[in-house]
Amino acid sequence: MQHKVFAVLSLWTFRSHTTIDESDYSQAETLPVTLNETMAADFTNDLCTPVFIVDLDTVKRNARVMLERFQKLGVQLRPHMKTHKTVECADIMTGGARRCIVVSTLAEASFFADHGYDDILYAYPLPFDKVERCAQLAERLSLFHVLVDNSAALEELRKRPLKQGKAWHVWMKLDCDNGRAGIPYSEPRALQLAKDITETTGVELTGVYAHCGNTYGCQGEAQIKAVAQETTTVTLQFMDKLKAAGIQGVKSSIGSTPSCSHPVADMAMLSEVHPGNYVFYDVQQSLIGSCSLKDVAVRVLTRVIGHYPHRNQLLVDCGWTALSHDGGGKLPTGYAVIEGHPELKLLSMTQEHGRIEAVSGKLDFTKYPVGSMLSLMPYHACATAMMHPMYYVHSNGKIVGTWTPTRGW
Amino acid sequence: MQHKVFAVLSLWTFRSHTTIDESDYSQAETLPVTLNETMAADFTNDLCTPVFIVDLDTVKRNARVMLERFQKLGVQLRPHMKTHKTVECADIMTGGARRCIVVSTLAEASFFADHGYDDILYAYPLPFDKVERCAQLAERLSLFHVLVDNSAALEELRKRPLKQGKAWHVWMKLDCDNGRAGIPYSEPRALQLAKDITETTGVELTGVYAHCGNTYGCQGEAQIKAVAQETTTVTLQFMDKLKAAGIQGVKSSIGSTPSCSHPVADMAMLSEVHPGNYVFYDVQQSLIGSCSLKDVAVRVLTRVIGHYPHRNQLLVDCGWTALSHDGGGKLPTGYAVIEGHPELKLLSMTQEHGRIEAVSGKLDFTKYPVGSMLSLMPYHACATAMMHPMYYVHSNGKIVGTWTPTRGW
Repeated sequence: MQHKVFAVLSLWTFRSHTTIDESDYSQAETLPVTLNETMAADFTNDLCTPVFIVDLDTVKRNARVMLERFQKLGVQLRPHMKTHKTVECADIMTGGARRCIVVSTLAEASFFADHGYDDILYAYPLPFDKVERCAQLAERLSLFHVLVDNSAALEELRKRPLKQGKAWHVWMKLDCDNGRAGIPYSEPRALQLAKDITETTGVELTGVYAHCGNTYGCQGEAQIKAVAQETTTVTLQFMDKLKAAGIQGVKSSIGSTPSCSHPVADMAMLSEVHPGNYVFYDVQQSLIGSCSLKDVAVRVLTRVIGHYPHRNQLLVDCGWTALSHDGGGKLPTGYAVIEGHPELKLLSMTQEHGRIEAVSGKLDFTKYPVGSMLSLMPYHACATAMMHPMYYVHSNGKIVGTWTPTRGW
Repeated sequence: MQHKVFAVLSLWTFRSHTTIDESDYSQAETLPVTLNETMAADFTNDLCTPVFIVDLDTVKRNARVMLERFQKLGVQLRPHMKTHKTVECADIMTGGARRCIVVSTLAEASFFADHGYDDILYAYPLPFDKVERCAQLAERLSLFHVLVDNSAALEELRKRPLKQGKAWHVWMKLDCDNGRAGIPYSEPRALQLAKDITETTGVELTGVYAHCGNTYGCQGEAQIKAVAQETTTVTLQFMDKLKAAGIQGVKSSIGSTPSCSHPVADMAMLSEVHPGNYVFYDVQQSLIGSCSLKDVAVRVLTRVIGHYPHRNQLLVDCGWTALSHDGGGKLPTGYAVIEGHPELKLLSMTQEHGRIEAVSGKLDFTKYPVGSMLSLMPYHACATAMMHPMYYVHSNGKIVGTWTPTRGW
């Protein structure tokens, strides 16, 4: 019960730092309270630390919720693989279909193709050094999609026609106020590029793709839904422009974990969505309002390696090689949430050391003996997963397997 | 010549942001001016980006300078492997000896042992979950050293006596105002732990180890030397205390790349030094004053993947998966130095995208066509190397090999 109070207080502190309205705290009661009991199960004692662990049941639940949510809306879920980059997790996210995925690197595309996956969308502005590798995948798979947002990329595709009479499946990237890749939806050259794609020999305009990464600036469901609505509206308006220009049969897809965690009704008019992080979730997503902390499926386990009472700190064996610097330490608890210990802050990290101090007052070192375990909930699961050559997967208090991600580009 | 002016201006800007004295700019003229010509050699065209490249000749020079520096001082160089974690680079750093190295993880220790290395110091507060693996390495190698800074760790060693009549080789970690691991040199319990080690059956006090990581807060040679002097002085004073207590034959070692790049005369009285980063160096080290930018041996090559004139930005295919977030983007040029382009700033990164803008004014997009290459000098080479499953090694404008680092713990 004491943990519960601490957890709520701790989350309250987060939110006050991130300037969210106090009225949003009503959901604090639903936030996790007994994580520590779950995570500190005995199986963890056998693991060498630092180690990245994945709660299989939470992964399955997150995946099922997202699949069912978009089945009900009648929208195809095309899950993004970038967070985990493993076949096992991809199987869960696709419901075993092994089709219809998004990847962020060509290494992922090849990896999943090698494991029997098909209908793979490489949702990245076509890199000119990888056109030949893309062509080979497009010739080998039944469906391999690329993404373009400029005419120079289109010219690269034109110069490398696919064999076997195949056409390049091209998604055009639309920037719906996210401000990364894509042509701004309001600019006339967006429609012009769509026309140019349809008119290029050997190339087919398969879809229009928008990433509403601007949901990452949201706080709470209402703000997320406002961005989801705006992205959906301008994407659908662009689809209308395509139809008015005589361009038919083009799919539409938007996505981000926040918007797909709180979809608006109009998203039912889209062909597809493409979230990815939701299968793990993380502290950042809980602060945005995509999930609560109980939905976070991953942890870094770390052990106490020393007490330094003269500076009121302890050291743990988790440096940035095991957690990443993502988040910049801006949480009230520093670089992570230390599960069951809202009184602790992960202040800083070097390559293999983490410095932990008290959020306030003196540390009671007897609570954290040298050799004891702490469980860190990552700020950004994608960044933390990236640091680990292997994930340990647990269910019902037992390690049930390991997953090996692909790396590189 | 225009590049030269830009480079000096650019460095000047760094230093003014980091509040170094203007009198230190006299060295600006010696800073790199023609890197871009060197790095943009044709061989890079064949590499898929992002890619981590290592200039073999610079690595060899950095390694030789450090070896010769401490040979002259009569001090054993025990290079740290944490920056690169490859056998090839270790061979260069040890001058082919394959002995006398420091590692930051037990995975590194095993990796180097498997490749014929010996006399390996695992310079990390003994983690209780890895005692058995340490024992096996200690029994297998001629010399395997561990590090302790608390009596609980000593007790763990006592409980696992080595076979074959071997003793544990223990280095005691002394904190010389660095504020990470170690017992503060001034506390009586430091000497007490040394006594306890010598009096424990099956354990031998081999050395005293201090990491002067506080040199990373220095700016310029004078400040570095002041910290090097202070660390050396208090370490040697502690050695005197040991002798006075009848504890003989104990080695002493201090290290950090800044202090070993600018050693003070008294360091000749130490047994060993243990720098690591110097073999690559990086922008951070150049700002500290350990090196100049021409000594930096590594780059991330990246390609332009899009122009976004409506927000005066271009995108490159280097996100935090290829560079890391280290440095927090605080350089005037953001997260890295963009070689030959002091007018550019790497403003932000997401997983696979980097946003580049102009340091000031409008970007001239014609200078950076989509598909063209940019060369990023990392803020922190250790953090950037960690993101890459393979390094491409070049010499005289040709790729001459690849190095594969070990990962994990």
